[in-house]
Amino acid sequence: MSYQPLLADTGFLLFDVLQAPRQLQALQGLTEADQPLMEQVLDEAGKFVAEVVAPLSREGDEAGCRWQDGTVTTPPGFRDAYQAFVQAGWPALACAEEDGGQGLPWVLEGVLYEWLAAANHGWTMAPGLLHGAYECLRHHGSDALKAQYLSKIASGEWLATMCLTEPHAGSDLGLVRTQAVPVEGTADYQVSGTKIFISGGEHDLTDNIVHLVLARLPGAPGGPKGLSLFLVPKQLPDGHHNAVACERIEEKMGLHGSPTCVMRFDAATGWLIGQPGAGLNAMFVMMNAARLHVALQGVGLLDAAWQKAHAYALERRQMRTPGPAPASRGSEPADLIAEHPAVRRVLDVQRAWIDGGRLLAYRTGLLLDVARHHPDATERAQAQQWCSLVTPVLKAAWTHQAFHGASECLQVFGGHGYVREWGIEQIVRDARVAMIYEGTNEIQAIDLLLRKVLPDGGQALGAVLVGLRGSLDASRPFDAEVLRRLAELRYLITTLCAACAAPGADPALAARVADDTLRAVALVLLAWAWSQILATSTAPRWSAPAQALRTWVLPELDMRITIIRQQMAPAAT
Amino acid sequence: MSYQPLLADTGFLLFDVLQAPRQLQALQGLTEADQPLMEQVLDEAGKFVAEVVAPLSREGDEAGCRWQDGTVTTPPGFRDAYQAFVQAGWPALACAEEDGGQGLPWVLEGVLYEWLAAANHGWTMAPGLLHGAYECLRHHGSDALKAQYLSKIASGEWLATMCLTEPHAGSDLGLVRTQAVPVEGTADYQVSGTKIFISGGEHDLTDNIVHLVLARLPGAPGGPKGLSLFLVPKQLPDGHHNAVACERIEEKMGLHGSPTCVMRFDAATGWLIGQPGAGLNAMFVMMNAARLHVALQGVGLLDAAWQKAHAYALERRQMRTPGPAPASRGSEPADLIAEHPAVRRVLDVQRAWIDGGRLLAYRTGLLLDVARHHPDATERAQAQQWCSLVTPVLKAAWTHQAFHGASECLQVFGGHGYVREWGIEQIVRDARVAMIYEGTNEIQAIDLLLRKVLPDGGQALGAVLVGLRGSLDASRPFDAEVLRRLAELRYLITTLCAACAAPGADPALAARVADDTLRAVALVLLAWAWSQILATSTAPRWSAPAQALRTWVLPELDMRITIIRQQMAPAAT
Repeated sequence: MSYQPLLADTGFLLFDVLQAPRQLQALQGLTEADQPLMEQVLDEAGKFVAEVVAPLSREGDEAGCRWQDGTVTTPPGFRDAYQAFVQAGWPALACAEEDGGQGLPWVLEGVLYEWLAAANHGWTMAPGLLHGAYECLRHHGSDALKAQYLSKIASGEWLATMCLTEPHAGSDLGLVRTQAVPVEGTADYQVSGTKIFISGGEHDLTDNIVHLVLARLPGAPGGPKGLSLFLVPKQLPDGHHNAVACERIEEKMGLHGSPTCVMRFDAATGWLIGQPGAGLNAMFVMMNAARLHVALQGVGLLDAAWQKAHAYALERRQMRTPGPAPASRGSEPADLIAEHPAVRRVLDVQRAWIDGGRLLAYRTGLLLDVARHHPDATERAQAQQWCSLVTPVLKAAWTHQAFHGASECLQVFGGHGYVREWGIEQIVRDARVAMIYEGTNEIQAIDLLLRKVLPDGGQALGAVLVGLRGSLDASRPFDAEVLRRLAELRYLITTLCAACAAPGADPALAARVADDTLRAVALVLLAWAWSQILATSTAPRWSAPAQALRTWVLPELDMRITIIRQQMAPAAT
Repeated sequence: MSYQPLLADTGFLLFDVLQAPRQLQALQGLTEADQPLMEQVLDEAGKFVAEVVAPLSREGDEAGCRWQDGTVTTPPGFRDAYQAFVQAGWPALACAEEDGGQGLPWVLEGVLYEWLAAANHGWTMAPGLLHGAYECLRHHGSDALKAQYLSKIASGEWLATMCLTEPHAGSDLGLVRTQAVPVEGTADYQVSGTKIFISGGEHDLTDNIVHLVLARLPGAPGGPKGLSLFLVPKQLPDGHHNAVACERIEEKMGLHGSPTCVMRFDAATGWLIGQPGAGLNAMFVMMNAARLHVALQGVGLLDAAWQKAHAYALERRQMRTPGPAPASRGSEPADLIAEHPAVRRVLDVQRAWIDGGRLLAYRTGLLLDVARHHPDATERAQAQQWCSLVTPVLKAAWTHQAFHGASECLQVFGGHGYVREWGIEQIVRDARVAMIYEGTNEIQAIDLLLRKVLPDGGQALGAVLVGLRGSLDASRPFDAEVLRRLAELRYLITTLCAACAAPGADPALAARVADDTLRAVALVLLAWAWSQILATSTAPRWSAPAQALRTWVLPELDMRITIIRQQMAPAAT
């Protein structure tokens, strides 16, 4: 069974709960994004994902990518599927019309990539990376570079990479050593160094590959401020092969459909993107979108795992359930495992994370659109604030849940989950990487607390949390609980900011509680998301996961608060 | 870097904290088990594990087992290592002297298998299974069967399997369909059926393989009471090959060094072990020991993951830590990641689980010895009670932690953890199976609560918890907290038993809270274990994990209690 996008679920969240078209049509250039158009796009996307991409996932894992003498062959069918993807115009869905794109809202691209990752995480890595490169080049590239590369990247005719990591420089990009030396009398640079963990650094999907490479100019200061960004194509404009070589691909836990390359740049020709020393800034332009992509991968992978476990639980019979005979028993000697409390719990809890995370990610996607296209600067700034604060939370919490929840779904299969046949163990292996890439989850927590919450004493996050109150109705029991949780979290953030800023405060306090703080924010946002779902529908499809959330998930919030409080005032004992 | 047993840690726990020799020497037949003898055995075991078994782990994962035309080839080096293991007498370490064993305490076998699993989980599956078969045959086999098979199994000359699961019968063995038909005028039976997930069902390590097969006699009732146990050898006493075939081996997430076989019995010749209809009883004789083996696998695998992460964290430098410069900084631009709070937390929390779990498992191993060999029946019964109640807790909680904690250790490596090179991802994949086999962790929770706690209204568990108080000193802050936690847990168990027994109680209540209850018991036992460690040493080696336990781990107990309480009295909201 391969992944099937559930259009009804997405439609319910996007149209009924979030009223996406109403929000989008207030934006410049998106006035045509009405519900029928969006539904049509989603309908086509769903078909493409289910029919073309999903069926290749299993073989993609088993055959994997092959490296030979510097060339990389992707698994059977990957190239054809990619060509079809390009021909159908999917890469350019949300790119600007002047770059050959369709100018549709980002949120649709988000949904597309959620489904693609759910269907075939490995394959999706290839097109997934072009969007960051597109944004980066669009905002920071020279006119000459844009003329040469932008529409090719937008269309997906050429794919792109982000070459950041080096063997000794992972989370700490300030340690990057790759050098870029200007070639006198030209705009060219010669880029030299070794980059690792480069997804799609080499492959057979496109003729050219456009590498965005973080490197250091001669005499540049050490640390992150000495980094500049360069565009280094595999194939030079004159048709020659650039001095870029794929030395090997990694053997990995999963994600076998995506080649993870060691790339050597050997005085390769490249051109500066943006200002010297502003390399990291140039990359930050696409960071929220890229991290939201990864958060949506988490949602999608968890949904894929859930679909498998749910189908199996409605098929497999073991033992009698406690209590009255379920209707499904009939004359069978054993009940469907879906009727057993331990299995029911796994399925409902994962749905709570999937649906709630989806709502939050779609909302954040809509606000990315608002931040880009709203005519009013205040609206744009507010939307940007939400994206900036909420994106690292979604990235960390939902990739965490994808791996751990997929493992729970594997458990539903018993021993059958551990063998390849059912495909669930592949999801666990594939999902694990998303906790690491695009900034490890620990880096997301530091980004949230140390870079975004503490510097303004929690003002911006407080404003975001206060802003959620307007959508809650204290007379509804669920909303009342969410209001209480919001207040608890605000109080926690306020006291934490004070504790970190207090004279003589432990300088490591913030780092010690960053993970728990992110987790607390995630749980409160998740609870809020469910308040919005329940305000729209209380059908069992939605009320069962909401109940599971309250019963099994939300009690974690008290635990996180306790842990953080104890760090703020360590007991004398 | 391959696994290195830490003899000093084991010695500290076994000799200094648990005073194992004093306990063992009070037992019949174990009076010679003094500390020098035990140390000598552990020293030799440690060398064998580190030098012979550990170096084969990586290739065992990569080469895996191969099936061809019904025969199975184990990875390079596995056969030689197994022969050396047999020649050194390791399989028979704790077997009775009359069966050719060395008659040493079970707890030493437990430590040996903890280390073996940590070093090479796949390889360890093969000898790991002979012990259950040995116990089963020793207690329930006829004299004729024992004469033929017992010493060969004890010595490891022949390996053994447990053939329980069938395609439609996993956790629910009552659904087993394999048939055993008596051959008139003989003691023979013809056994027919298909068994799946048979670890070591076929291999090249030994000439003969002794299968213990759960099957149903003609006319036997349905359900578990109709099951009998049969011994079915691969090679018959007359030298002919029995009608037993390995149809294929599974492709799995991990554990590639161990062949997981689909076995077909086609009117294969076998003999009854124990009474007709008492097949499950015959297997229960070895269940605590087998589950304790698996709990120790969990401890060992987590230690293996910790060793890798710890070594990496003392080598890898990324970013500056918050606060004063650590001594290790020197003139480096970045600090060791071991100095970063997020990494420190992972390492210390895992040590809290490893050391605490090890202590609990060793204590339980000692009590297995007491239950078998103490001259006093009351002492035996008390020891048996501990083993019966604590073993499922250790199996479930420590296999859970092995997988989840190994994943945390993987995270310490960042992207390097996701590639094969460092071996940490193999541990995550290998460890996952232990949450499933030997009774899934959900089955352990049901075993604990529904079969062992509720039937006597929590009396036995209450007695075990009360028994722990004598080893605590309320004037020590850590012990005071443990006493409080013990009281909380006892109160919870009492009220839960009452709620389940109340007229009109929800019959599904116990099943709904079984996992959380097991988890609560695990946390309290873990806390108690650390009280015993701290009472023996407060050196930083031990005080840092203890502090991590209090800070990051124990707050979960309140969460579990909240979850259970809410189920007992669902809020009206």
